[in-house]
Amino acid sequence: MSQEDFAYFTEENSAEVVISRIENAEDERMKQIMAVIIRHLHAAVKEIEPTHEEWFKAIRFLTATGHKCDDWRQEYILLSDVLGVSMLVDAINSRRPTGSTENTVLGPFHIQGAPEYEMGANICLDGKGEPMLVHGRITDVGGQPLPGAKLDVWQANDDGFYDVQQKSIQPDFNLRGVFRTGADGKYSFWAVRPKHYSIPTDGPVGAMMKKLGRHAYRPAHLHYIVSKPGYETLTTHVFDPHDPYIHSDAVFGVKESLIVEFHRIDDERTAAAAGIDNPFWNVEFDCVLAPAAT
Amino acid sequence: MSQEDFAYFTEENSAEVVISRIENAEDERMKQIMAVIIRHLHAAVKEIEPTHEEWFKAIRFLTATGHKCDDWRQEYILLSDVLGVSMLVDAINSRRPTGSTENTVLGPFHIQGAPEYEMGANICLDGKGEPMLVHGRITDVGGQPLPGAKLDVWQANDDGFYDVQQKSIQPDFNLRGVFRTGADGKYSFWAVRPKHYSIPTDGPVGAMMKKLGRHAYRPAHLHYIVSKPGYETLTTHVFDPHDPYIHSDAVFGVKESLIVEFHRIDDERTAAAAGIDNPFWNVEFDCVLAPAAT
Repeated sequence: MSQEDFAYFTEENSAEVVISRIENAEDERMKQIMAVIIRHLHAAVKEIEPTHEEWFKAIRFLTATGHKCDDWRQEYILLSDVLGVSMLVDAINSRRPTGSTENTVLGPFHIQGAPEYEMGANICLDGKGEPMLVHGRITDVGGQPLPGAKLDVWQANDDGFYDVQQKSIQPDFNLRGVFRTGADGKYSFWAVRPKHYSIPTDGPVGAMMKKLGRHAYRPAHLHYIVSKPGYETLTTHVFDPHDPYIHSDAVFGVKESLIVEFHRIDDERTAAAAGIDNPFWNVEFDCVLAPAAT
Repeated sequence: MSQEDFAYFTEENSAEVVISRIENAEDERMKQIMAVIIRHLHAAVKEIEPTHEEWFKAIRFLTATGHKCDDWRQEYILLSDVLGVSMLVDAINSRRPTGSTENTVLGPFHIQGAPEYEMGANICLDGKGEPMLVHGRITDVGGQPLPGAKLDVWQANDDGFYDVQQKSIQPDFNLRGVFRTGADGKYSFWAVRPKHYSIPTDGPVGAMMKKLGRHAYRPAHLHYIVSKPGYETLTTHVFDPHDPYIHSDAVFGVKESLIVEFHRIDDERTAAAAGIDNPFWNVEFDCVLAPAAT
């Protein structure tokens, strides 16, 4: 910057002055990202006109959110989730051709190494909850079945917790399983009817949600990652339309196309053949994979 | 929200959907602040289009910044400082009538309880650095001297550290003093010529500054808080125009009106009378207090 262009910081030029200092950033992407952040940060402060005390409240909130994070808890991801930022980043990175199944957030509870089962297996290892048969077909956008597609599914148990949240209570890999489609592209497994559950509320994000008059519940859902070489990996959920929180997911994960009917089935014979209790639930969910971006 | 108004979250409507959830916030101010934050946060994410990895880098940075904060270090205030936010908040809260002295940031090194001295005292207790006589007049916007005004002054020592940063090295209250003006509104004291110094660079904010190609120096300055009942408290600095960082203060604290000439004086007699070494520096800085907002 030449001496002639120089301007001291004022209330009016604040963002421009700060951005002029990052001309020598180590790469163009970093410079671009920081310029956008600085511009919106200054615009927000100018709209809000915080008092010194309000500014310090924000400092304390950000500090407390950092202090809540450890190897087992990521309060900043939770903050990103409840402000819709995680879903927005997911949406931006998951633009798909019409007809392919929509993505939603991965969430913090996926783990690698779940057991691989034969189709029709029961992934519920703790015996709790109402049995649910989940089945469908994996196809390409032209409707052709995809053999050799990998399904990685997981869900919370009937008490509303994932196995990794209750290591000493639930069996390892409870309600997790990996399946591979055959020539017909079909899949099926037994799980349990999911229930809504609360995100963690004992930290600064929970306190913020309370002040904002928001509940902390996620509507009942089942997680999927569906992948096959040559296709975009699909990370998604299936949602129950009758859940009381279906219109107010605390992390904004619901998409209309991911809501499917959960049918209650009274069929002694099928239940007995599968070794589960009657009645049970039946959910059909087909996945359409988009071709991989080239 | 009525059922008819309901919309699921999409990339397009993301900010509106998140803002629609805070209708029941505990107060209007909280609701207004969060709506502005959500709107700018989503707009920034849409402009940046971060990859999942870039988003996670941001999560890690925010977490590390929180983890660096403890009772002695406030890395989030430092982040606010180097992004110009602290100065912007100060500017918004310090709009003054023309002719009154401008505010700048308080900084993290002010402490209560500095010793009160008679005019002309020397606040340098460690004997380091080049002596500097600081003097001037406190007046109202009409130019009338203000008796009974309280001056609270502090600065870093000749090694570039405040006493509170070197508790076992510097004497307590080194280079701090409180003075009260008499009928003429004048003040004077001996200090040392200030030097530029670095803000802390051993945390995530320092690492960010490096990636942004920015140095971490603040130009040489002396701090003032000037107060008198019935007038707005003035929190400000005086800056040396010849400092190499006068145009690039790491925290954007410099205002043109706060730069005054530091004169080098060769005067054996004055130096001997004051009990300081010759030559010395002479700085004159008048403060004009605005009437308190009613």
